Amino acid sequence: MIYSNFNKKELLNEKERLIQKLEIYKRQGLKLDMSRGKPSGAQLDISMPLLQQKLDYKSNGVDYRNYGLSMGIPEIRNLIAELLGVKFEEVMVLDGSSLNIMFDTVARAMLFGAYKGAKPWSRQKVKFICCVPGYDRHFAICEVFGIEMINVAMTETGPDMDEVERLVSSDESIKGIWCVPKFSNPDGIVYSDETVKRFAALKPKADDFRIFWDNAYCVHELYEPVTLLNIFDECRMRGSEDMVYEFVSTSKITFSGAGVSAFITSERNMEYAKSIIKYQTIGPNKINQFMHYCYLPTVEAIREHMKEEAAIIRPKFEVLINRLNEVKKDGLVKFTEPKGGYFVSIYVLDCCAKRVVELCGEAGVKLTGAGATYPYGKDPCDSNIRLAPTLPPIEEIETVADILCVCIRLASVEKFLSE
Amino acid sequence: MIYSNFNKKELLNEKERLIQKLEIYKRQGLKLDMSRGKPSGAQLDISMPLLQQKLDYKSNGVDYRNYGLSMGIPEIRNLIAELLGVKFEEVMVLDGSSLNIMFDTVARAMLFGAYKGAKPWSRQKVKFICCVPGYDRHFAICEVFGIEMINVAMTETGPDMDEVERLVSSDESIKGIWCVPKFSNPDGIVYSDETVKRFAALKPKADDFRIFWDNAYCVHELYEPVTLLNIFDECRMRGSEDMVYEFVSTSKITFSGAGVSAFITSERNMEYAKSIIKYQTIGPNKINQFMHYCYLPTVEAIREHMKEEAAIIRPKFEVLINRLNEVKKDGLVKFTEPKGGYFVSIYVLDCCAKRVVELCGEAGVKLTGAGATYPYGKDPCDSNIRLAPTLPPIEEIETVADILCVCIRLASVEKFLSE
Repeated sequence: MIYSNFNKKELLNEKERLIQKLEIYKRQGLKLDMSRGKPSGAQLDISMPLLQQKLDYKSNGVDYRNYGLSMGIPEIRNLIAELLGVKFEEVMVLDGSSLNIMFDTVARAMLFGAYKGAKPWSRQKVKFICCVPGYDRHFAICEVFGIEMINVAMTETGPDMDEVERLVSSDESIKGIWCVPKFSNPDGIVYSDETVKRFAALKPKADDFRIFWDNAYCVHELYEPVTLLNIFDECRMRGSEDMVYEFVSTSKITFSGAGVSAFITSERNMEYAKSIIKYQTIGPNKINQFMHYCYLPTVEAIREHMKEEAAIIRPKFEVLINRLNEVKKDGLVKFTEPKGGYFVSIYVLDCCAKRVVELCGEAGVKLTGAGATYPYGKDPCDSNIRLAPTLPPIEEIETVADILCVCIRLASVEKFLSE
Repeated sequence: MIYSNFNKKELLNEKERLIQKLEIYKRQGLKLDMSRGKPSGAQLDISMPLLQQKLDYKSNGVDYRNYGLSMGIPEIRNLIAELLGVKFEEVMVLDGSSLNIMFDTVARAMLFGAYKGAKPWSRQKVKFICCVPGYDRHFAICEVFGIEMINVAMTETGPDMDEVERLVSSDESIKGIWCVPKFSNPDGIVYSDETVKRFAALKPKADDFRIFWDNAYCVHELYEPVTLLNIFDECRMRGSEDMVYEFVSTSKITFSGAGVSAFITSERNMEYAKSIIKYQTIGPNKINQFMHYCYLPTVEAIREHMKEEAAIIRPKFEVLINRLNEVKKDGLVKFTEPKGGYFVSIYVLDCCAKRVVELCGEAGVKLTGAGATYPYGKDPCDSNIRLAPTLPPIEEIETVADILCVCIRLASVEKFLSE
């Protein structure tokens, strides 16, 4: 590592040099934001024809402009069933926010139990396993419901399954686990076949344990196709399909928050969910669903569309990664290059992440808060930083990356000086 | 009343005559439906230009195609604030289903309490006052959450306020009341100014008591404008605005389930609601909201639009009411002619409603189930039937009305024969 054989004077010189460099950026009064995984305007533009279709919104004698079809329109249920390799009856298509479906799924279990006759979670101790680093909004749902979170580390093939198996099989209060199985948020890890099989083979102590399979990036390849094993196939072989809730949305396919999202689970779970959801709503926005279906009517059309999306964001990822490779060479940061998804997840030296984010902020670059990728916002090593390069224009990514590299160096030098 | 001085033979002859008449309809194999308050295709057609607008979905530098604005777009919040006479900060605009907002509002109180620090409803005995007859989906929400329902009778000026005041001020377990204050479902009653003032002046024993003010038909006049007193104005004078949750939607203005709906409450309540909703969703479908705003940008535009809607449904109401006036003259049914809303609510002789609905069903006419307008589906008098004349074409309404009149007569004759 570059600074490990610097003496104090050399470290102080380096610190001074970096502060000078940062000063130049500060004087520019920049206001750059790489904090959230939002698509860029150019990506959103791709889907504009979706909104310009002339449709009559009638299909097989049903008027989609009127009430009805609480499970969503059959066309889009079929399409999602085909995309994910599940049954039509296992797919409920709702409005734009899959987060809303996840929240409601937990809320239903809290109020009514996870299956008919089960004890509501609100009347018992409930813990969730959180794969770390992970998605802050998953953790936030646990927090608001008072669900205790237990960290399990991610590996290059998915969560540490030895630990997951141990916890799930030994503790009846463990009722759930949050997973982003393909291009995980933030690391971009794709769960290996073995990991998926081990998930399907879990033998939970709690009969109301559920896997929250947030397949947010199921078609979000940056390069060639990447296959994730179909967990429902694996579960069906073992009779464990009631254990899985899957979630997908088009928020990062068409429009963010204005697309369609889906809830996928076993027929038994779905019957139960429906028995409560029917009190909650008469049905989703079928006009928007039909627009989506007509614009992207086949799995092939979705994949072609996603190639256009990838063409826009890939260069942004590459610019960021190329710049970061310099500090990586110097041993100041670690990361794996993601092959899809929305993030680059970097690990700076221990105890440096907060400082790096702070230094970037002072130079006008907003990053996701350090710690956000951990439950309660607490990264035990203060090392992980999630970078979201999709929204800013590529020139800004370059500037952000340059500033970020300076800040990583400076925080590292400070760390060495304080030791 | 026509049959009260018939002797047994005359009643039997009349019964035979009516059965013969009904037989003619039965042979036609009709399949008519007047069971739900759905708009007709012609009504939905009015709003088709909404879907054909060429918009860029950007406003004041914000891209409405992307994440953000959890309270909805400012344009439509302003519009609803103006329409209802409330403050911008008191309006949250969400997706298509106001039922969903109502369900979630109850669910939040169940899980987290009605205000910060309040005891969750799920941990105490909870009762709601239900104005009867009323809206079945309101009652269903109570049922699924295990909330006990207490009936209070509707009068021509709104609920029996003596009874409401007595209950609310004496029983701490009474936490809510369902109201449809304008063109009530099903009776079409508009709450009088005095009723609204008495609501605002309620002194509930429970500090977490809330009025669920479902203003579903706020602009749904069939004839000239009808004014409902603004409950928030009245509450503000008395400092009681935290007591009110108001709900509106465009499901019967533009598209059913594919419009926008809004939650309106005091700033204090709104801050609390937001503090939980932020975990549930990143935001509503702003593309759909912007389409709605651009198509109906002013209160005046909404009112003009509703005149077109009224022009389509008014003749349907009138045909139905004219036919029913015959049986009304004979004393077999009572009703008030609604001046707006979506229903005609009739009261047949006691113990006859179920039988009328059954007889209609046998003749191929589907009506809302008798009892549906009461909690637990139990109309103590078995008298009320809700008719929904908006969906079928006018010729069908005529046939339905004719069959309905025959069935009302037949059920009445049967009643006299059994006495």
